[in-house]
Amino acid sequence: MSERAFHTVAADAAGRLTDHWRALATGALPVVPPGPPGTTLKALPQRPPERGEDLADILEDTWRTIVPQLVHWQHPHFLGYYPTNNSPASVLAELVTAGLGAQGMMWSTSPAATELEQRVCDWLAHALDLPSRFTHESGQGGGVIQDSASSAALVAMVAALNRASAGRWRDHGTEGRLRVYCTDQANSCVPKAARIAGAGRPVLVPTVPGTQVMDVAALARRLDADRAAGLVPAAVVATVGTTVTCATDPVHEIGTVCRERGVWLHVDAAYAGSAGLCPELRDADARPDLADSYAVNAHKWMRTGTPCDVLWVADRNGLTDALGASASYLSDQSTDADEVVDFKDWQIPLGRPMRALKLWYVLRAHGLEELREVVRHDIRLAVLLASLVEQEHGLHLVTRRLGLVVFRAETDERTQGIARRLAGEPDILCTAATVDGRPVLRAALGSPYADETTVRRAWSIIRGHAAAVS
Amino acid sequence: MSERAFHTVAADAAGRLTDHWRALATGALPVVPPGPPGTTLKALPQRPPERGEDLADILEDTWRTIVPQLVHWQHPHFLGYYPTNNSPASVLAELVTAGLGAQGMMWSTSPAATELEQRVCDWLAHALDLPSRFTHESGQGGGVIQDSASSAALVAMVAALNRASAGRWRDHGTEGRLRVYCTDQANSCVPKAARIAGAGRPVLVPTVPGTQVMDVAALARRLDADRAAGLVPAAVVATVGTTVTCATDPVHEIGTVCRERGVWLHVDAAYAGSAGLCPELRDADARPDLADSYAVNAHKWMRTGTPCDVLWVADRNGLTDALGASASYLSDQSTDADEVVDFKDWQIPLGRPMRALKLWYVLRAHGLEELREVVRHDIRLAVLLASLVEQEHGLHLVTRRLGLVVFRAETDERTQGIARRLAGEPDILCTAATVDGRPVLRAALGSPYADETTVRRAWSIIRGHAAAVS
Repeated sequence: MSERAFHTVAADAAGRLTDHWRALATGALPVVPPGPPGTTLKALPQRPPERGEDLADILEDTWRTIVPQLVHWQHPHFLGYYPTNNSPASVLAELVTAGLGAQGMMWSTSPAATELEQRVCDWLAHALDLPSRFTHESGQGGGVIQDSASSAALVAMVAALNRASAGRWRDHGTEGRLRVYCTDQANSCVPKAARIAGAGRPVLVPTVPGTQVMDVAALARRLDADRAAGLVPAAVVATVGTTVTCATDPVHEIGTVCRERGVWLHVDAAYAGSAGLCPELRDADARPDLADSYAVNAHKWMRTGTPCDVLWVADRNGLTDALGASASYLSDQSTDADEVVDFKDWQIPLGRPMRALKLWYVLRAHGLEELREVVRHDIRLAVLLASLVEQEHGLHLVTRRLGLVVFRAETDERTQGIARRLAGEPDILCTAATVDGRPVLRAALGSPYADETTVRRAWSIIRGHAAAVS
Repeated sequence: MSERAFHTVAADAAGRLTDHWRALATGALPVVPPGPPGTTLKALPQRPPERGEDLADILEDTWRTIVPQLVHWQHPHFLGYYPTNNSPASVLAELVTAGLGAQGMMWSTSPAATELEQRVCDWLAHALDLPSRFTHESGQGGGVIQDSASSAALVAMVAALNRASAGRWRDHGTEGRLRVYCTDQANSCVPKAARIAGAGRPVLVPTVPGTQVMDVAALARRLDADRAAGLVPAAVVATVGTTVTCATDPVHEIGTVCRERGVWLHVDAAYAGSAGLCPELRDADARPDLADSYAVNAHKWMRTGTPCDVLWVADRNGLTDALGASASYLSDQSTDADEVVDFKDWQIPLGRPMRALKLWYVLRAHGLEELREVVRHDIRLAVLLASLVEQEHGLHLVTRRLGLVVFRAETDERTQGIARRLAGEPDILCTAATVDGRPVLRAALGSPYADETTVRRAWSIIRGHAAAVS
């Protein structure tokens, strides 16, 4: 195609997107699409075309066939899971990243891609007040962008397995003795990462009764008992802001226990980590001063589109010893001279796009002040929603932490009934979950378009369904 | 920012990108940037800004600071590794994908994202003449987009480990007995995947002397010997188009050996798989009729930007049994009713962007005829380059397969001397590698802007360096 044609169709797409964002902001779109399974499949031809088609037509089809069958994750009534965020700055960066088409597996395969990533990961470490040993500046640790908290957990875990086995793991695998530890409140990606890493089901450390946080004394006992039994404790995964209730494990105390025993501590701060932008929200008990690795999803609460998880490690060699890959076609003078960072050795894949441009655009376009305001704004909205829950006869606030509100009805049957009705409601998306064996409903704030009006409107929809269930 | 402002700055970015592509096409840019390590770091501030900055300024900075320090992977003189491709259709799709900001971990979290991916994976399976059991249509298998051939290999491997251990792997890990097999010609991501999966160093099956392809009889003997020794062979990884010489393992024969022994066969066709678009390039010996999984990087030779690897499996349950993750907050009516596909259970991460839009745009915008022509065009250019090598006194053509040309000088010292000179040449990028212990140079065609003129120009640069090394 001609360059002129691309310019025209890209401008058309930008216009459609701004219209789309306006429709989200004004509540003109449902959150959840109307079609049953198979709706999109039926609308798509069985076979690809032999002859090329016009991009303008494909764009038109996107809005006719695809957009109406998407869930709109940035809709102000989207209260499910945790947010997946976005912003014009992030979208612009994705356009530029794709257009430049760089591949940054090694420093030498796109120097600016690697150095930009080093710098923005340092920027964010500083903005979140993380220990300086997590920075590239320190010369010891550093940050790297992963696609997800899942991959971050897996990457940290294999580094831990390698360290715990003094490098035997690289050649001989897990051999059935290496162990990973977390609570039943860790995100599903944590046991999945342990499984993928060949360590099997993680050891579940009990939570303190009545809370959703790790019992540190129980962790210490279990680590010692396992070691005494000939097992090799390799990694503990703690959470800052659990998925169900946004609970935070006592990271600092856990760090002490792990440090004394030489066990790798990975901290999954996928959602709540962004709150660290605000000094008043930093929690001394949750500081990762003694952690080996720490991960935050910028794509959750930092106006950056998915995927963008930042993983920091205190000891970069711990990571590259486990994940380093060599081959004749990957040898490189700068690498051999140990002058540069090759991010292929900090992640699962060999290849990687230029991952950092998006975060650079977002941090610069918004500035730290505005990103802190995003967090504070969403928390204010969550406080409002929590107060609306509390005013409602027959509903009970389980907890409100950061931007998350968890509530239930007085009986489990009624909570489940409300959840069933909400699952069929196109104008709201909440997530049902379980706390201490009891069903709850979660509402997480985070849409760029949410405000007091949208929260009250969303609540009136939820309230209507609640009222219909006796 | 205002929507109007986004529209303006996106149009600006589109204009800059079209100028950039024109500069690549006309040879106005070097392939490799001039700066030593630290050039970009020095140009970037130490700390992020407190106040937001204008997107137009950030865009300007991108072209001032980042673009000059990138390797241009689509430059016609970029002959390194294998290509990472691109096209206006792919870039447009990235813009739209980012702007819509959908998250498709489950069918219910964005139905169109999942169903579009099912359909385009089926489209591509059909276009590549893959066995029908690899399609979603079949109801048994199906395709899923991964970020890389590395992740595809890892995902296939964990499914294999789970199957080989009859599900024990999920709870107990690899236990030191499960084994993975490949040759020393497999891409570095294959042993890395085995390591990440906790299976340790893979068993290296010998290649047939004088070739770079797996010795099938040796594979069969080794599988049987290992089983007799109490080990559990889980997966064999075969390659269609190896990284160094584009050699292809006898996939069909290997499949017979694996099938008889119940061992999972994964086929890594990252680069050469795209040649299957052309009927005349399909190789009966390489057909994956007996394979369990097959992966092709659309981002290598199919005009689709990175990341876009398509992994097909013959038995979707084999994958989801290994990778399925459940949690109270992930329960879902459509999933429970077994009506839909949840791609979170087909990959490592939990979350995922809408991955298929890009491939949909590319397949439609180009059409199969044009994508076949891309492959044929690049092969014609490789044939031309190979003939230029052969005409050159003192240089020796090692092999020309598909779009890859491998050559060396008459002595290893001279080959290494040429490689050292080329490593410092900004107007060419070749990859040095090793074949049978001897150094070689690789030149892989694949730039959208390459033609006979650029090949002759690139060759004259290489030839000049060769002439300077005695």
